[in-house]
Amino acid sequence: MDPLIIKILVLIGGVLALAFVGYLVRSILRESEGTAKMKEISLAIRQGAMAFLRREFLTLAIFTVVVFIVLAVFIEPRPFVAVAYLCGTVTSALAGWLGMNIATKANVRTAHAAINSWAKGLKIAFSSGAVMGFCVVGLGLLGLSIIAFIWEDSHVWLGFAFGASSVALFLRAGGGIFTKSADVGADLVGKVEHGIPEDDPRNPAVIADNVGDNVGDVAGMGSDLYESYVSAIAASMVLGVIALDASTGMLMPLALAAVGIVVSIIGALSVRPKEMKDADFEKQVAKAHATMNTGVYVSNILMIIASFFVIRAFTDKLDLFWALIAGLIAGFLIAQATEYFTSAEKGPTKKIAKSAESGAAVCIIEGLATGMMSTVIPVLLVAIATVLAYIFGGLLGIAIAAMGMLINLGMLLAMDCYGPIADNSAGIAEMAKLGKEVRERCEALDAVGNTTAALGKGFAIASAALASLAWLATYFEVADIDIASLTNVGVIAGVLIGGMLTFVFSALAMRGVSDGAFAIVNEVRRQFREIKGLMEGDANPDYVSCVDIATSRALRAMLLPGILVIAVPLILGFTLGPESVAGLLVGALLTGFLLAVMMANAGGAWDNAKKYIEAGACGGKGCDAHKASIVGDTVGDPFKDTAGPSLNILIKLVGKVAVIFGPVFIMVIEL
Amino acid sequence: MDPLIIKILVLIGGVLALAFVGYLVRSILRESEGTAKMKEISLAIRQGAMAFLRREFLTLAIFTVVVFIVLAVFIEPRPFVAVAYLCGTVTSALAGWLGMNIATKANVRTAHAAINSWAKGLKIAFSSGAVMGFCVVGLGLLGLSIIAFIWEDSHVWLGFAFGASSVALFLRAGGGIFTKSADVGADLVGKVEHGIPEDDPRNPAVIADNVGDNVGDVAGMGSDLYESYVSAIAASMVLGVIALDASTGMLMPLALAAVGIVVSIIGALSVRPKEMKDADFEKQVAKAHATMNTGVYVSNILMIIASFFVIRAFTDKLDLFWALIAGLIAGFLIAQATEYFTSAEKGPTKKIAKSAESGAAVCIIEGLATGMMSTVIPVLLVAIATVLAYIFGGLLGIAIAAMGMLINLGMLLAMDCYGPIADNSAGIAEMAKLGKEVRERCEALDAVGNTTAALGKGFAIASAALASLAWLATYFEVADIDIASLTNVGVIAGVLIGGMLTFVFSALAMRGVSDGAFAIVNEVRRQFREIKGLMEGDANPDYVSCVDIATSRALRAMLLPGILVIAVPLILGFTLGPESVAGLLVGALLTGFLLAVMMANAGGAWDNAKKYIEAGACGGKGCDAHKASIVGDTVGDPFKDTAGPSLNILIKLVGKVAVIFGPVFIMVIEL
Repeated sequence: MDPLIIKILVLIGGVLALAFVGYLVRSILRESEGTAKMKEISLAIRQGAMAFLRREFLTLAIFTVVVFIVLAVFIEPRPFVAVAYLCGTVTSALAGWLGMNIATKANVRTAHAAINSWAKGLKIAFSSGAVMGFCVVGLGLLGLSIIAFIWEDSHVWLGFAFGASSVALFLRAGGGIFTKSADVGADLVGKVEHGIPEDDPRNPAVIADNVGDNVGDVAGMGSDLYESYVSAIAASMVLGVIALDASTGMLMPLALAAVGIVVSIIGALSVRPKEMKDADFEKQVAKAHATMNTGVYVSNILMIIASFFVIRAFTDKLDLFWALIAGLIAGFLIAQATEYFTSAEKGPTKKIAKSAESGAAVCIIEGLATGMMSTVIPVLLVAIATVLAYIFGGLLGIAIAAMGMLINLGMLLAMDCYGPIADNSAGIAEMAKLGKEVRERCEALDAVGNTTAALGKGFAIASAALASLAWLATYFEVADIDIASLTNVGVIAGVLIGGMLTFVFSALAMRGVSDGAFAIVNEVRRQFREIKGLMEGDANPDYVSCVDIATSRALRAMLLPGILVIAVPLILGFTLGPESVAGLLVGALLTGFLLAVMMANAGGAWDNAKKYIEAGACGGKGCDAHKASIVGDTVGDPFKDTAGPSLNILIKLVGKVAVIFGPVFIMVIEL
Repeated sequence: MDPLIIKILVLIGGVLALAFVGYLVRSILRESEGTAKMKEISLAIRQGAMAFLRREFLTLAIFTVVVFIVLAVFIEPRPFVAVAYLCGTVTSALAGWLGMNIATKANVRTAHAAINSWAKGLKIAFSSGAVMGFCVVGLGLLGLSIIAFIWEDSHVWLGFAFGASSVALFLRAGGGIFTKSADVGADLVGKVEHGIPEDDPRNPAVIADNVGDNVGDVAGMGSDLYESYVSAIAASMVLGVIALDASTGMLMPLALAAVGIVVSIIGALSVRPKEMKDADFEKQVAKAHATMNTGVYVSNILMIIASFFVIRAFTDKLDLFWALIAGLIAGFLIAQATEYFTSAEKGPTKKIAKSAESGAAVCIIEGLATGMMSTVIPVLLVAIATVLAYIFGGLLGIAIAAMGMLINLGMLLAMDCYGPIADNSAGIAEMAKLGKEVRERCEALDAVGNTTAALGKGFAIASAALASLAWLATYFEVADIDIASLTNVGVIAGVLIGGMLTFVFSALAMRGVSDGAFAIVNEVRRQFREIKGLMEGDANPDYVSCVDIATSRALRAMLLPGILVIAVPLILGFTLGPESVAGLLVGALLTGFLLAVMMANAGGAWDNAKKYIEAGACGGKGCDAHKASIVGDTVGDPFKDTAGPSLNILIKLVGKVAVIFGPVFIMVIEL
């Protein structure tokens, strides 16, 4: 086919995603926001979330300008890499902003719809999740393809991906610290000290907690996967240009992504929840889950068929198709394993609940052991997928395998972002006192979100591991490294330092949460002490101050990790040389991947063990085992929602720093 | 010098160590065991410890026979490697058995001596620690040198080191699971449920707890460092033969070790505690600490001077001396960093204590973050030492750097093993009701042990990391690998699987503890329920059943980890090839090292944070912060005494499996 026609089709794919977003937004905004109280709460959440994002973007702007200047001065082709970097940051930020904006409007509409219809609530929350999903793929594909069509130079493409990464780090880690500081802080004083329920409007941190769901789980998750998506496509393009011819190498990944958007739209449209009268909680959850799974299966099957034809059309053979399938199957199986280790119905979580009977310490030990054990399947599957993808398609095969996991991201992300929106709607139903029945419906919606989250996390982690392997491969090409042997002590030193970097990064993220939570606890205690009539419901708490505290803490806590991730590869590259940086990437990938899986699964398992006990097991709510399980759940919070997911970005971002600065390392070494 | 004379001098060094052991044993046994009650308690501990060791050796014997047959059939030169392997296991087991036997006799004598004299108590406990220390270096050096003088074939030497490793794995990990199952189990029912003090004779698990100190901390620690010691010397010999000439390469490491024994004896003899009348607790601890530090400084300085001359005499230059110094300084600084992160007087531990005010969960998060943060200095120092050692002496330099940390092991280990003996004496003083003053003296002795333990752990971890790097280097030589490049997907798969192996291993070790503790809890509860008059002190508990349960649980829990450590490198070697195994070693080294440091330091910091609160900080004993800190301490127990130290052995043992079977991988691949 004529390359020009392919280019046009690719652009149409991107535009289609954004048009679908427009359609979804219209349908969401058409719904009612409900009572004045509901509007008020929703507005407070939106204002808090937007205020956070504004301040985060401000910090990010300073960071971006500095990096922009460095790139414009040092990195060839000047200043196009810098320009592409800027485009990457702007589109990524835009996707996060748009998606979150709609999410904060959809939450109240979901709650209002749930007053009458459970199915309609599901529909609105899912549509809002899809807004995020298709913003990400639409802006990602359009941005990358326009850059690629203007500058047919792989260094420039890498600049765009680098831009996406740096935004993701701030949004994911910063948002993660915000959301868990607020969550842990709100729980520690509200639930534990004052014995008031979750989402009680008397709790001054309750708005901050709901803001956190949006900035951490919607904007953070969106920018995380924007990053993975752009990374996987860009790495495929760079390696494709080397392995195939220039035109095919560039266009095939973009064409696959465009096709992925079409099948994702079909998948999303096939999610059609039906009203269930008189169904109980369990059945509603199962039904909602099945409804969304339909969308995933439809888009997956269509995608396999479509990519078969696309790859054959471009390459005349199926090698890369098998690489893509290897990635897809690995991602799917890893998601299943994640569900096994974290589901309340399965053995590991039940064992943690049981261990809570011996106290908090044993519950923590058991949860950590479960998290560590749960690394086996993901690691083996990634190792197998990598070896197979390499056999089928060389280094390009690895990048294509990563694409296999991410190609129908629009649909996957819709499911992922559905969760926090449903969670928010349950919060609004509680705060606006909509009554037990509505609250229960919203909680059923929320419960589905917790299950779909496992799927999303599995894919996010697995795709991050494969994407960073693809970036390692890209680094070898860009920095012209044929051999980075473990017999070289510089490489070994790099491996050690890379591994250490992820430990330090995790420590800083977790400490950010515990410091932030501590500050929130003090503020909430102060308000309960100083604002008269607060506990009795006669006076309103000062929600804004809690949001402010969480915001400034999160941004401050982000600074050092952000600098480290960029500085360490550079320092190593300029001192021990480019091979040592390859060691760093592998060290960071290994420990980052292991810790991310461990933390996500331990956190998820603790969370569900607590819910399992609350549902009546091991003594039920209020018993000692329940208290022990709350300790587990609280430890799990920064694990699964802050440090764990941030590591996904870390391991890809170090790869990008290496790739962008790789040519400079060589120049300096040669001097 | 004539090689024959050097050989004779080396053998004399080994014999000297054993003669010194004889002298120490005589001086210990000359002391009185005290009252009938004390004898009875001491006997119960000794019988329990010996029973554990007997059953462990039985399991080990089966394992050893299987490995012996495999080596005798497959590994050249047949059957000498197998014979050397057998010698390695027997000497290692013998060192553990002898040292522990004396330790279980010294504990009661320490307690008795403390009735009259604090200094004499210190002397006895330290002498008993020295028995372990010099058993290890004496048997290690004699065994290795006799093997080396009979068979001047490096493959045979490796067999001896492999034997030492497999015993170490069982003793360290099995002992670690035993000791923490008993400790956690005893505390959970005794302290928490029944509110009786630690070491109360009414607690049925109290003897098992004291047995645990001996099997885990004495025998386990001893076999761990026997393994490191033999590893470092053997690796230096193998790499020395390649880098230097055959005679120098073999004899110089042995000569260094022999000199190390002499300086260690001088160091140990210079530990001369003086009686302090009317000194308070703090001063006694500071004094005891200073007394033992004198010994370390004396032996270190003498060792630096002596090794200067030894290395110059053998090689005519000082390159390897600098490599040795790099290792020694790195080890020393890592020990300082360990102390900083775990000492109750320093910031990190105080911060953990402070965080306990916000509850158990925040205390756990803070402790984990501290542990992760504490990896920075050890990793950087090991990386720097490795690079420097390589610059000075190539691959041999790395092995020599590892020797630098271990050469005066006799002295270091004396300090290390002193701790659990003092701990035991405090337990005996409590159980035999020797009165408050004696108990306090014994506790002062115990407190010193906790401080010296930090030093020992720092050295154990750092030397394990360097020793496994030395074994990686040996593997490259033995398996004839010039390049194991990260551009090779097989290597990457190996790295991933190696990292996963350490996570699985840690999970199994921790789960072994939580399962074991659970079984002990049930047994103790059963006895309190069924034995009438137990709580009132009218009836005796059944101590033996608790020891039996801990023993069988520990041995059962050891099985899978033991098999995995041997099977995984073999499977990888036969499928993905020898380069992939190099990746496995690096992956295991990286994550094993990081996790070991993190676990040791988090565990130590939690322990001391609890003690800091008990000393009156943050609300003092009994407040909520104290309860939270107990959760931290209990989570830290399997971290610092089971999983953490076992990882040291894991990372060295996989290296040895690789080295022993390396030649076979190549044969199979070539077929």
